[in-house]
Amino acid sequence: MADAGRSPQMQRYRALVAYEGTDFYGFQRQAGETPTVQGALERALAEVTGRTVSVLGAGRTDSGVHASGQVIAFDAAWRHGTGALQRAVNVHLPPTVALLHLEPTAADFHPRYDARSRTYAYTLYASPVRRPLLERYAWGLRCGGLNVAAMAEAAALLCGTHDFATFGQPPQGTNTVRTVFRSELETEHTLQPQGAVLRYTIEADAFLYRMVRRIVGALARVGRGKLSVEDFAQGLAAADNRWPNRTAPARGLCLIAVRYDE
Amino acid sequence: MADAGRSPQMQRYRALVAYEGTDFYGFQRQAGETPTVQGALERALAEVTGRTVSVLGAGRTDSGVHASGQVIAFDAAWRHGTGALQRAVNVHLPPTVALLHLEPTAADFHPRYDARSRTYAYTLYASPVRRPLLERYAWGLRCGGLNVAAMAEAAALLCGTHDFATFGQPPQGTNTVRTVFRSELETEHTLQPQGAVLRYTIEADAFLYRMVRRIVGALARVGRGKLSVEDFAQGLAAADNRWPNRTAPARGLCLIAVRYDE
Repeated sequence: MADAGRSPQMQRYRALVAYEGTDFYGFQRQAGETPTVQGALERALAEVTGRTVSVLGAGRTDSGVHASGQVIAFDAAWRHGTGALQRAVNVHLPPTVALLHLEPTAADFHPRYDARSRTYAYTLYASPVRRPLLERYAWGLRCGGLNVAAMAEAAALLCGTHDFATFGQPPQGTNTVRTVFRSELETEHTLQPQGAVLRYTIEADAFLYRMVRRIVGALARVGRGKLSVEDFAQGLAAADNRWPNRTAPARGLCLIAVRYDE
Repeated sequence: MADAGRSPQMQRYRALVAYEGTDFYGFQRQAGETPTVQGALERALAEVTGRTVSVLGAGRTDSGVHASGQVIAFDAAWRHGTGALQRAVNVHLPPTVALLHLEPTAADFHPRYDARSRTYAYTLYASPVRRPLLERYAWGLRCGGLNVAAMAEAAALLCGTHDFATFGQPPQGTNTVRTVFRSELETEHTLQPQGAVLRYTIEADAFLYRMVRRIVGALARVGRGKLSVEDFAQGLAAADNRWPNRTAPARGLCLIAVRYDE
């Protein structure tokens, strides 16, 4: 009886989250019944804790984009241990979302403002015909092959600090300068009877709206020989959002990691 | 006008077929509206050729099983070239099925009776929590890790000619002896923060009903330490379908190749 009235203290938690983005209208909560990842997380947390919980996310992934390494934070008063909280939330989440890891963290930890970098991977494949087993998580280019060496050369040009206005608009404000720490394209495996799966990985301090998908749209044109590496370099240098380009579809994109100073 | 009455000759075609099995009730045609891969192929071929077409398949994959290397054959009278036939059929197929390759073949080619071997791959993963991006094509074992060395040792025991009655019933007749040419288990990649994706590959002259899924069910028990490699060997030697076992779920299984004498 002495214990019954004593509420557990509020604690900030940090979680590593994975989701299959196909059926979500992006990460960010929306009005009404629109399914979003943040909405699913907040609903599960409210069911488990009995209180309204606000979730902070490191990256606001677009509609249809996946994540294997999203980072979130939330506050909860919970007395049964962190492992029990993780299991309970996972039971209440839809099968397309899961907390991969959960730990108590500092009360002022903010997954977005404290992040040093985000890493995205984009999967694409070259094949003269569609590949039903790849379509869900990759963008299929209908061709026999791509010039991977030229694509890798163009990708490497993005490393460093540049004005990326050509590849996207800022979510807020007008600063389009970002620093890219890693930008690599590699063949993941070949396909039978003809084709290949490629993976593009980019790590940056922050990203403009649709930046990765617009970069991949341009890299695909380089791979098909419709754009030279020099044209790609000039496009970057122009820092001009009107540069003709296409945006690669959301289904190939996955937020794979968020890095912090620890 | 002289040409209009001349029908093109009947030709047998051979195709390499891939499908996402999730929403199909297996390969084999069923009565009524039940969605099957054979039904989808025959409907597309009928729409393209204007005639009823019967499709022969190398392997009758179960409900929910995928394929990246199924082989089929069918007869058609077609005058516009093999490439045009392949493209037309792919347009009429649902997005979950595709002809990866199509070629004219001998009139007596039979994809099942002429096959020298079939190769299946089974993907499983070990993780304390579910992985939303793996669930569609893999079986998730809720654990921190598996004894991969013991699983690989048990898998290797299946190579050669054995009575496989422990691992399945014959589709017809009573002969449960099969010859396994390859049986390998390997780590495909590790998972963050904890876990691994494993891939089991088996090639045999033919398979019993649910044989791969029952083998994987037993290998998973070996990996979790619930069955020793010696117990596994004794289970195989017993050639007894009553041997206690579980059947791994269909979604991890994929028919990846069918081999012929050429």
